[in-house]
Amino acid sequence: MLPDAFFAGPGLDRADHLRFDEEELKRIAQSPAARELVWSEGLPSIDQDGRLQLQPAQDPQLFLGLTTDAPIFSPLQDEFADAWKAFGLLAILDPADSPTFAAALSLARWHARHLFCARCGHLSDIVRGGWSRRCPACAAEHFPRVDPVVIMIAEHEGRLLLGRQPHYPPNRYSALAGFLEVGENLEAAVARELKEEAGIEVDRVTYVASQPWPFPSSLMIGCHAMARSDELTIDINELEDARWFTRGEIQEALSGALSASFQPPPRAAIARTLLEHWLQLDEADSAP
Amino acid sequence: MLPDAFFAGPGLDRADHLRFDEEELKRIAQSPAARELVWSEGLPSIDQDGRLQLQPAQDPQLFLGLTTDAPIFSPLQDEFADAWKAFGLLAILDPADSPTFAAALSLARWHARHLFCARCGHLSDIVRGGWSRRCPACAAEHFPRVDPVVIMIAEHEGRLLLGRQPHYPPNRYSALAGFLEVGENLEAAVARELKEEAGIEVDRVTYVASQPWPFPSSLMIGCHAMARSDELTIDINELEDARWFTRGEIQEALSGALSASFQPPPRAAIARTLLEHWLQLDEADSAP
Repeated sequence: MLPDAFFAGPGLDRADHLRFDEEELKRIAQSPAARELVWSEGLPSIDQDGRLQLQPAQDPQLFLGLTTDAPIFSPLQDEFADAWKAFGLLAILDPADSPTFAAALSLARWHARHLFCARCGHLSDIVRGGWSRRCPACAAEHFPRVDPVVIMIAEHEGRLLLGRQPHYPPNRYSALAGFLEVGENLEAAVARELKEEAGIEVDRVTYVASQPWPFPSSLMIGCHAMARSDELTIDINELEDARWFTRGEIQEALSGALSASFQPPPRAAIARTLLEHWLQLDEADSAP
Repeated sequence: MLPDAFFAGPGLDRADHLRFDEEELKRIAQSPAARELVWSEGLPSIDQDGRLQLQPAQDPQLFLGLTTDAPIFSPLQDEFADAWKAFGLLAILDPADSPTFAAALSLARWHARHLFCARCGHLSDIVRGGWSRRCPACAAEHFPRVDPVVIMIAEHEGRLLLGRQPHYPPNRYSALAGFLEVGENLEAAVARELKEEAGIEVDRVTYVASQPWPFPSSLMIGCHAMARSDELTIDINELEDARWFTRGEIQEALSGALSASFQPPPRAAIARTLLEHWLQLDEADSAP
């Protein structure tokens, strides 16, 4: 059984057929039932129950989808918080609303950064309820980006490789990660990143779980890989440190014990899901 | 054991550290050893052995990586063939060269379609050996796109769902597919696409294999899903037809028999890999 990652799940009914029906979408946006997300400090706001805050639609530019009660929109935005500022909010966001939160954040940010046609340089128009931009000069159509990122734990003789970047909180260690490039599949990207960042070769790569990550618009693809050796050559341009952790150390860190040898990744990060999944697998293997 | 898909594998050593070393990259590009891809009719050319055709570098704009013999570049291009024109070439392309073929095609095409800064509309500059463009006006940096696509076979009581699009060759049926959107993970995208295109609900989604698909720059993520029922509601805007095929029908189609009830996807398509993998699994299940 694969684990659930944060930001994963169906979220709203995206009702994508409505994106192609300009008249109907306009009617819906102007209906009294239409609601829009409230934004604050560069993020969609949530109420005290951890649910997305909604208000009657005033600037319904981006059509996010339908609930049983209402069509949901978001206004356009100019300013966006980064992931580090969002973690407080993510700790209390209801998982049921997290896909909508992620879609709104990525989509609004994509528009703010893609006002102009990359093909000809002309200002482009928002079309299809915000799910595309069309250039009135050259007719090129541009779609929101989703950037695949591989994020992986490498295993060697029962220990896992985790690393830390300089901007992490003190003593935080997490899974290594990197953008997948054109001409690669998942397995090739995982092997390349582990070779580049830690100097290790891997044999078997297994998909574990995936998660949209709206800072700004990644698809995190979580994998497990078996390393051929534990000899590390760390790329100090990418990582401040990387080392191997035992099952006991990981268990202790995830339990939140003060004596833990490192701080694990936070709840909303798929790196934590990868560690939890690995501990479960290991338990299943050693069960009688 | 997961199957290998075409275009998958490590390909060249991408030597990404060289992208950040402008002086060294310039020296390499001007060295007598430097080679570049030859292009013809919108595709990288291949020789009679199915290998990528190379010539001394004349316009080494895009740095693809290193072989043991030479650094490999590609010139920029204006015209590109689509997938249907490429299938003849793909049938004879050496799999070892396919990741480089895919990277060159996607990268060259991305540059041709992204000359201008999407943030401010100014003409941007090629930097990092072609792996990024930087805007001299607003300093925004733009990276090549990789668009994740989910492609999946749905199973119900031992039969598989395949569909056909109007532009397919006669009687060709293949796996259903669609672009993953912001705010979705793999499993949610598979469930949404199967619901939208075929009207079925699915329970379990499993990753099988992935493949870069350079028409223009997709990452095809191949999955298997278990359908809750076999009652179809086909979206005729997306599909001309969709139906359930038995194991025997799929086996016969893949064997190339003239009596086959449908034409399967061609060799280079991951849809074919998904079908081959499913037949193998099924055999393993029914083995004594």
